[in-house]
Amino acid sequence: MVLPRTQEENARQRALTYFQRAGIYLTKDEMDSLKAVDFGLGRLEEIGLERVVYVKTGRCCAKEMILFPGQTCPEHIHLPFEAEPGKEETFRCRWGKVYLYVPGKPVQKPQAKIPEDLRQYFTVWHEIVLTPGGQYTLAPNTLHWFQGGPDGAVVSEFSTNNRDEADIYSNPEISMAPRRN
Amino acid sequence: MVLPRTQEENARQRALTYFQRAGIYLTKDEMDSLKAVDFGLGRLEEIGLERVVYVKTGRCCAKEMILFPGQTCPEHIHLPFEAEPGKEETFRCRWGKVYLYVPGKPVQKPQAKIPEDLRQYFTVWHEIVLTPGGQYTLAPNTLHWFQGGPDGAVVSEFSTNNRDEADIYSNPEISMAPRRN
Repeated sequence: MVLPRTQEENARQRALTYFQRAGIYLTKDEMDSLKAVDFGLGRLEEIGLERVVYVKTGRCCAKEMILFPGQTCPEHIHLPFEAEPGKEETFRCRWGKVYLYVPGKPVQKPQAKIPEDLRQYFTVWHEIVLTPGGQYTLAPNTLHWFQGGPDGAVVSEFSTNNRDEADIYSNPEISMAPRRN
Repeated sequence: MVLPRTQEENARQRALTYFQRAGIYLTKDEMDSLKAVDFGLGRLEEIGLERVVYVKTGRCCAKEMILFPGQTCPEHIHLPFEAEPGKEETFRCRWGKVYLYVPGKPVQKPQAKIPEDLRQYFTVWHEIVLTPGGQYTLAPNTLHWFQGGPDGAVVSEFSTNNRDEADIYSNPEISMAPRRN
């Protein structure tokens, strides 16, 4: 399923306002490079994120991600590949609030809400709430997902290099869908 | 030479105002962890920088650096170590202006000014000027140095892991001096 162009452009423009609110300066080229990623499900407002990649070399990567209120990056894992142990990533909240879920004791009343029909694809429920300045480093090979809080979120990601083919999503429709990111 | 405590504290407090100006939120612990680094020369206003390390794992590193007006990170190189090719780093200017110098055609009239007695320890003069949103990725094993512009600078650094013992400074007094960073 392909995201309609107007919907993608609206999401891009809306994401740019988050950068302004967070006081993060982007160049014109970076604004143009901002992508709305719907993971192929065509439900961007629910399952998606917006992002600008600052740097991606063979060794490390830094990007800025926007999550609209309630918008969710779906559960996935970064598997080891070749001689590498898999992608290690640190999330740092710059603005707003983000709910991050990882393996561990499940929270009783999760703050994130997931569409009922996708509920089966979210299996880890240990909740970490990040507000500005809060950060969390995720070891490779760890299931995780995250959702923007009531006002959305701006999140920096610092990581080792990744390989798209080593990213496995819990929802098989995502791995089979055309990759838009 | 040890930086007097009051001078270090003044630099720390001054650096915190740069984070505010750049709209970068730090937690209380991060504010406390902010370090003024004088590279052991005791000339912090000329040769030094202030920094907060967000994350430093065995694989990658992200930090924020402050350079006061005219304050210089002295020339150095990140050598290969063990099986690693050496530290690769990306500088991204968030606020202000930074003059970065790398190997290549020397600039005719460099914008950075270096104290005359230290001039011999600055050997690469290809000038790159970074303003907000500007960034530059430095390959490992590349001599480089940088200086804050007229209003100073806030610079993000995204990098692979580093080893202090693989950082070689052109000024031998620095490698012999007690390491403060």
